[in-house]
Amino acid sequence: MYKTLFWTGDACGQLHLLDQTQLPTHVGNIICTTADDTWDAIRKLQVRGAPAIGVAAAYGLVLGLQGARNFSLDEFLNEVDRVAAYLSTSRPTAVNLFWALDRMQKHARSAAAQSAAACHDYLLAEARQIEAEDQAMCSAIGRHGSPLLSSGMSILTHCNAGALATAGDGTALAIMFQAAAEGKQIHVFADETRPLLQGARLTTWELQQRGIPVTLICDNMAAQVMKEGRVQIVITGADRIAANGDAANKIGTYGVAVLAKYHGIPFCIAAPSSTFDLSLPDGNSIPIENRATDEVVAGFGKQTAPEKTDVYNPAFDVTPSELITAIITENGIIRSPTTAAVLSHLTQTG
Amino acid sequence: MYKTLFWTGDACGQLHLLDQTQLPTHVGNIICTTADDTWDAIRKLQVRGAPAIGVAAAYGLVLGLQGARNFSLDEFLNEVDRVAAYLSTSRPTAVNLFWALDRMQKHARSAAAQSAAACHDYLLAEARQIEAEDQAMCSAIGRHGSPLLSSGMSILTHCNAGALATAGDGTALAIMFQAAAEGKQIHVFADETRPLLQGARLTTWELQQRGIPVTLICDNMAAQVMKEGRVQIVITGADRIAANGDAANKIGTYGVAVLAKYHGIPFCIAAPSSTFDLSLPDGNSIPIENRATDEVVAGFGKQTAPEKTDVYNPAFDVTPSELITAIITENGIIRSPTTAAVLSHLTQTG
Repeated sequence: MYKTLFWTGDACGQLHLLDQTQLPTHVGNIICTTADDTWDAIRKLQVRGAPAIGVAAAYGLVLGLQGARNFSLDEFLNEVDRVAAYLSTSRPTAVNLFWALDRMQKHARSAAAQSAAACHDYLLAEARQIEAEDQAMCSAIGRHGSPLLSSGMSILTHCNAGALATAGDGTALAIMFQAAAEGKQIHVFADETRPLLQGARLTTWELQQRGIPVTLICDNMAAQVMKEGRVQIVITGADRIAANGDAANKIGTYGVAVLAKYHGIPFCIAAPSSTFDLSLPDGNSIPIENRATDEVVAGFGKQTAPEKTDVYNPAFDVTPSELITAIITENGIIRSPTTAAVLSHLTQTG
Repeated sequence: MYKTLFWTGDACGQLHLLDQTQLPTHVGNIICTTADDTWDAIRKLQVRGAPAIGVAAAYGLVLGLQGARNFSLDEFLNEVDRVAAYLSTSRPTAVNLFWALDRMQKHARSAAAQSAAACHDYLLAEARQIEAEDQAMCSAIGRHGSPLLSSGMSILTHCNAGALATAGDGTALAIMFQAAAEGKQIHVFADETRPLLQGARLTTWELQQRGIPVTLICDNMAAQVMKEGRVQIVITGADRIAANGDAANKIGTYGVAVLAKYHGIPFCIAAPSSTFDLSLPDGNSIPIENRATDEVVAGFGKQTAPEKTDVYNPAFDVTPSELITAIITENGIIRSPTTAAVLSHLTQTG
């Protein structure tokens, strides 16, 4: 089976990433040996998906400290903060990036290491721990979400919230993988997800790898497929969820949620608890990344709009919680999310 | 100014089409000398847009009869029917194709020609008349629709309903051209319109040619732009409108209409009266063209989904009349379209 990322060696080892920009036509890894490599890989979307970005950044921090093993502990801890601050600038929206780096920084200080080298070793262990927890999180989301699916159902998903977006089996797709593993006959509609086609390139590929029937549609066909009664539930991932349940996810998710509401179809989000940002009361203050014009006007290696065309290219949008039927985390399901329900879910179980 | 199509010469002349598959990177004409050429050009979308298809088919019929000028009149009329039937198989959804061919067939019989050659000459005159009426229709739609727009408004449009879709100034875009000509400061959001990107390739190009500010977005960004309050009205074209006002248009239009409804934004259709098909009580029986998988998975010279991916690629969808605020025709505006309102509009003015 494909592996989104893995580390080889000791604390002076390397981070291997499945280069997602080359999928589906080429399945190959890139090797990151520096924090710069990792920053670039995140920015270029060679690794993407909120949980996977968090794990990659944790390992990227380890890479960025390989030259600091002979520092004094104080100097090393300063370097931890410097490299973490640098890595945190790679992408703005997915909160898991900041969550993982913050956890690594706290661990460096709380680990009570006797030396920089020891602290560096502890940080590798913590990054491995974040990866392992991510894998467990995916499995738990799959188990909690699978009861939402039954044989004969078609699920619409947007972008890619699969194994490629995590260190494990994914979030939204983990639910489908689990349901299929339980013998349920399901079918998936994958939105292609312009401009970068994560649905076409990654979600269809993953589902095919796992033998789950999938039909690819353009984003603008989702309404028609719903109207035809061919979709029974929508499940997507999320990149950041505010305290009231408002969820930022790949651009187009909000529109799909509105369409699902109009057609009376449940709209669900699958994401780990690390995706919640309780510092934000609602989704209005979630920062939204705007990306380059070229993604829209020359995305397929061919110019598809006039030169100098004005383009608006937000990478994410925010779905208000009132459009969300349920949020599935590794701890269970939040139905009809509200601030109270979110806080109760996270404090009782987290 | 660019010209979507034009005829040169007498009845044994040629049809020139601006090759829309090459826009925006190459602006060049193709020349059709046979009905086969015209059929291919329509099927390949070198000429597209419901009204333009109708005009092109009328001229295509003239081309297809150039070898029949020495036939007996009866033989010639049989040939008219044969070529018209052939041309009508080029695309299934836009009713203007059938409308124009039907009108040409009726004209051949009613023209009381003394010979095949004379009848052929009459048919060229009728094709020219259809083209001229199309130009006048566009201007009238522009005049009737312009009062819907005022300075400072942003209009969202989907696909291309511009001059490139007609023999004149377009349908939806004619309204914007007219408003701009009246000095109104307007701005347009153009959905790129996957899979064939008529919005990115054609609508942005046309608006730029005419100096109207346009911002290109991916289809899945329309909801976000509406949520941000940046769109005050949606205007699209249509390929076939049933008696109750249900309107078939480019895939994605239905979703945009649902989103407009959710955001309290008027959703309008601009189309000539020849787009109405009163033989259909509602939109359920409008035939919807399904197009090739390659348009979605390898549309721009690069494979963007795994090989053998299952794809659903309907070229059109149907927007129910209850989502349509108004239909603008060359005869005026049908507000809140119903069967009664449509019939009243068409019989009073048509």
